[in-house]
Amino acid sequence: MPNYRLQIAYDGTRYNGFQRLKENEMTIQGKLEHVLSLLAEEEVEVIASGRTDKGVHARGQTANFHCVKELKTNRILEHCRKYLPQDILVYGVKKTDERFHARYLAKTKEYVYQIDNRTYPDVFQREYRWHIEKPLDLAAMEEGKAYLLGEHDFSGFTSLKSKKKSFIRRIDSIEIRKNKGDIDLIFEGNGFLQHMVRIMTGTLVEIGLHQRKPEEVLTALEQKDRTLAGETAPAKGLFLNRVFYD
Amino acid sequence: MPNYRLQIAYDGTRYNGFQRLKENEMTIQGKLEHVLSLLAEEEVEVIASGRTDKGVHARGQTANFHCVKELKTNRILEHCRKYLPQDILVYGVKKTDERFHARYLAKTKEYVYQIDNRTYPDVFQREYRWHIEKPLDLAAMEEGKAYLLGEHDFSGFTSLKSKKKSFIRRIDSIEIRKNKGDIDLIFEGNGFLQHMVRIMTGTLVEIGLHQRKPEEVLTALEQKDRTLAGETAPAKGLFLNRVFYD
Repeated sequence: MPNYRLQIAYDGTRYNGFQRLKENEMTIQGKLEHVLSLLAEEEVEVIASGRTDKGVHARGQTANFHCVKELKTNRILEHCRKYLPQDILVYGVKKTDERFHARYLAKTKEYVYQIDNRTYPDVFQREYRWHIEKPLDLAAMEEGKAYLLGEHDFSGFTSLKSKKKSFIRRIDSIEIRKNKGDIDLIFEGNGFLQHMVRIMTGTLVEIGLHQRKPEEVLTALEQKDRTLAGETAPAKGLFLNRVFYD
Repeated sequence: MPNYRLQIAYDGTRYNGFQRLKENEMTIQGKLEHVLSLLAEEEVEVIASGRTDKGVHARGQTANFHCVKELKTNRILEHCRKYLPQDILVYGVKKTDERFHARYLAKTKEYVYQIDNRTYPDVFQREYRWHIEKPLDLAAMEEGKAYLLGEHDFSGFTSLKSKKKSFIRRIDSIEIRKNKGDIDLIFEGNGFLQHMVRIMTGTLVEIGLHQRKPEEVLTALEQKDRTLAGETAPAKGLFLNRVFYD
């Protein structure tokens, strides 16, 4: 059965997350499946690299779907462009190996957490950046971030509701990039638990504000205790940027 | 009577333009006057460098207001921050000469028109850039723009509803700046008629798409004929960036 791979960008503001749960709920998956099913003339299932939470955005979500009908890739692009709302964009489509699975085969992912560190917030980025009024000490944040790199049990850095079997994940890099008042935290790793990027960000921000010492990252990791890490940063600043496959 | 000068940024998306016309209409001026009047304990009038149309944004609108009560500038900033909606920001206040008048004394203004020239639009800039799918020929646009520089009668480049006494304006510079898929047209001049920046942009875009020749700018200027210029670019891409005073 033909298998199509999609590159998707979406503004998560209006949506209750990626994953379709109930009928008639606003989800990215729900919108995509509705529109693609019309074209495929069957009920298709869209498999993404992972779900994103309510309010979280994506610049490079990757997904795939199977359908019986042979579809031209240009036809899929045009159809999506025409029928999807303006806050969801399918900008890449290719026919792929029948066994390609966007979730199982994802090797690493890149998330970006966007902060606005101006005294007064940038009006035009208010839906896409977490505004922190006081200047962040980036050197302290660099020190704190170093403890997160490598393979660890991230039990202390995930939502308490998480029911994963393993909390071990590997973080390959965290880059802190400043451009005028914009600060971007770029995380790459082999997998991220629920709220993990937002809790790491919240913790690093508290370090940058000198409300917390860099070493406390290590304690929270070692003790596997959510209460020892920082607050969960708001969803609106988080973007799934890229997903890497072999 | 004390006179206060304000620097204001706003996202015009939700508003019916700057100027207060009817009671209870959504306007920037209406919001500012409402919030400042509470603080001043009298009905204040906010005088801006100029009105912006429905849907047009500002990064550096300048305005002033008089009131009897002496106000601390920090108090004005805090009050505005607390009571204005998130899409209007007063980020600068200073007490100024009693005779300062934001409209009469404005010397030049800088407007930016933002275009998204990617094949697929940037989802996160969809409210702030005009999406042009086909690649624009910037060299042709540079040629066309040259005719606009200097002092001209811009009757051909304004809304037909305009009832100004003089249509003569001076354009000091137009810069075409490209950064990846983003194209910004930066206009500086001593005054702009209604829709003038949007009509100049629409005309330059048609030149960039080879739907129109650069020389046609000259014809539209000389003939003073609106029908010889290009379409009016959408409001959402236009920003009042800065206002210059002596």
